[in-house]
Amino acid sequence: MNKFTFALEARDGAARTGVIRTPRGEIRTPAFMPVGTAATVKAMLPGSVRETGADIVLGNTYHLMLRPGAERIARLGGLHRFMNWPHPILTDSGGYQVMSLSKLRKMEENGVTFRSHVDGSAHLLTPERSIEIQLMLGSDIVMVLDECTPYPATYDQAEASMQLSMRWALRSKDAFERAEAISRGHALFGIVQGGVYPELRASSVKALCDIGFQGLAIGGLAVGEGQDNMFRVLDCTTPLLPEDTPRYLMGVGKPSDIVGAVLRGVDMFDCVLPTRSGRTGQAFTSEGVLNLRNACHAEDLRPLDETLNCEASRNYSRAYLHHLVKSKEILGAMLLTWHNLAYYQHLMRKLREVITEGRLREFAADFLREKAGN
Amino acid sequence: MNKFTFALEARDGAARTGVIRTPRGEIRTPAFMPVGTAATVKAMLPGSVRETGADIVLGNTYHLMLRPGAERIARLGGLHRFMNWPHPILTDSGGYQVMSLSKLRKMEENGVTFRSHVDGSAHLLTPERSIEIQLMLGSDIVMVLDECTPYPATYDQAEASMQLSMRWALRSKDAFERAEAISRGHALFGIVQGGVYPELRASSVKALCDIGFQGLAIGGLAVGEGQDNMFRVLDCTTPLLPEDTPRYLMGVGKPSDIVGAVLRGVDMFDCVLPTRSGRTGQAFTSEGVLNLRNACHAEDLRPLDETLNCEASRNYSRAYLHHLVKSKEILGAMLLTWHNLAYYQHLMRKLREVITEGRLREFAADFLREKAGN
Repeated sequence: MNKFTFALEARDGAARTGVIRTPRGEIRTPAFMPVGTAATVKAMLPGSVRETGADIVLGNTYHLMLRPGAERIARLGGLHRFMNWPHPILTDSGGYQVMSLSKLRKMEENGVTFRSHVDGSAHLLTPERSIEIQLMLGSDIVMVLDECTPYPATYDQAEASMQLSMRWALRSKDAFERAEAISRGHALFGIVQGGVYPELRASSVKALCDIGFQGLAIGGLAVGEGQDNMFRVLDCTTPLLPEDTPRYLMGVGKPSDIVGAVLRGVDMFDCVLPTRSGRTGQAFTSEGVLNLRNACHAEDLRPLDETLNCEASRNYSRAYLHHLVKSKEILGAMLLTWHNLAYYQHLMRKLREVITEGRLREFAADFLREKAGN
Repeated sequence: MNKFTFALEARDGAARTGVIRTPRGEIRTPAFMPVGTAATVKAMLPGSVRETGADIVLGNTYHLMLRPGAERIARLGGLHRFMNWPHPILTDSGGYQVMSLSKLRKMEENGVTFRSHVDGSAHLLTPERSIEIQLMLGSDIVMVLDECTPYPATYDQAEASMQLSMRWALRSKDAFERAEAISRGHALFGIVQGGVYPELRASSVKALCDIGFQGLAIGGLAVGEGQDNMFRVLDCTTPLLPEDTPRYLMGVGKPSDIVGAVLRGVDMFDCVLPTRSGRTGQAFTSEGVLNLRNACHAEDLRPLDETLNCEASRNYSRAYLHHLVKSKEILGAMLLTWHNLAYYQHLMRKLREVITEGRLREFAADFLREKAGN
């Protein structure tokens, strides 16, 4: 059967573990999606990304529409073939990065006009165009165009922003249906907005459930509100979400954010942290975050983590990584990115395991007490 | 037997193929040594370097003595362990890069004083110190300290420079013997100098043979003299070299340089060209050098070279590589470097094969006519 499905396999409190099935393969949840911004998980071979245990990567519509362009990727056979990643891909809508990266942007009811940060060319992104682009890329999980409400925002600002997002969610769904994308195995996820205001979050969930999606994301978090606020929003939002569809917390996060969100019933995550940190000399480990630039590592013969089943974690000393980082060698970025992704995927594997065994609460308490990879 | 040996297996005209045996493993000749400047072949995992067919890599004494320092590498168990490359390593003497990279250098009979380009610290490199550093690194093939005579140089300049190098060669040999390095399987190579002057080259060869080395390098070429001059110097030099020791042409070169030098009896090569070109978007192929920045590759679905047994050469389209190079993605440098090294090692494998079969002249004529990877 060539369709997108989600099967829960076990529950532990609010937490869940299960499997999303897509025509491109399975995604075990809770899942962490490495970010492959410009059709590459930076400094990683796709085969190595897979080896760490990633079932799915994220592609950025904003970057890809500007370079090399969605039409070009479509002519070349789609994003999977282009980047040599035959497994599932989720694409964002482009909205978030239009607001954070582009120039001269102008938000209107119809959509957002902006100029490319690459070459200054003018573009219009509407809900319909975002869906069109994501389907040209061949995305397995397509996201609706929304406005990521900034933090802080007043109640009125958050409400107006959320209502715009809900109107765009409906237009996105219509465009997705007109393209008959479901029958080809693509899925469309809605995005809950509403800032830090429980009533607005509830109202957003209701609007999205009325429209109907294959999964729901929680947006507008990890934008500076802090972990406590984020967890409070999750506490009031995830209980309202349908049980039988995946829940995706966008742009999150640190390992402790992920553990806390899984405890609250989230199934999917994406974040640049493991990849970006890898390029700036930071390693996530069970001892916490190590900064490999630090002179204390200069003669440390220990590998980053011998227990991880990852070449980068086991076969290179901290002393060598220190040298590579200090010397700005590409191999330093390669090895630290690889290790960090292996660390994240190992954490997700552990989370799935302890949920299955009903031991999540105990695991999370130990993990947060040790501040492992915090 | 834990010693350095060289066994010729076949001859074809002036060309030879054979095997250098070291305690760290075998080096099939003609051999190309990827350059691992700062304890890393840039943008490559050591396992991938090995997979391309490399038997040996080159380490740069100048870079390593400055960062992380030879004493530190020694404390960490040597360069092989440090960079996770258990196979043979050749180190240069540091002299060439002191002259090209350092600041405020001053050449005297005793050695050269200079300031580090990394942190401005003062250093003295003498023949004795160079040998000491290379042995601390654990180098399998140690090079004498010499002065790389610049091009152009008058006869008198080239003669004085060569004679200084011969005095330093003797001091290097003495230091190497005092360290009893031969019995531990290390080898010391002398370096022929003399610019473009046949008499000086002959005189240099004689001086080095009188001292006695496990191999001889031809230095002072690939410094701007052009391929014709280089081949002329080889024509008058290689016939004078001992038959039973390896001959190493330093810093060479383009594929056509290598083919021409192998025809003239050279056994070993090193060059930054395949690795450096990989980081600037150039690929060596049987069609010649491709510049992947060029828009003509933007929608070309062909891989770089399907016939090479290399993931980077086979599994990624030119269109994708074009995108990565234009987007300055690290993966572009990784894949192009990998492909270029695979191309070079494939060429060396072919050269060994056609020498064994007595078909080198025919192969070289075809190769040079097609200007493959020129």
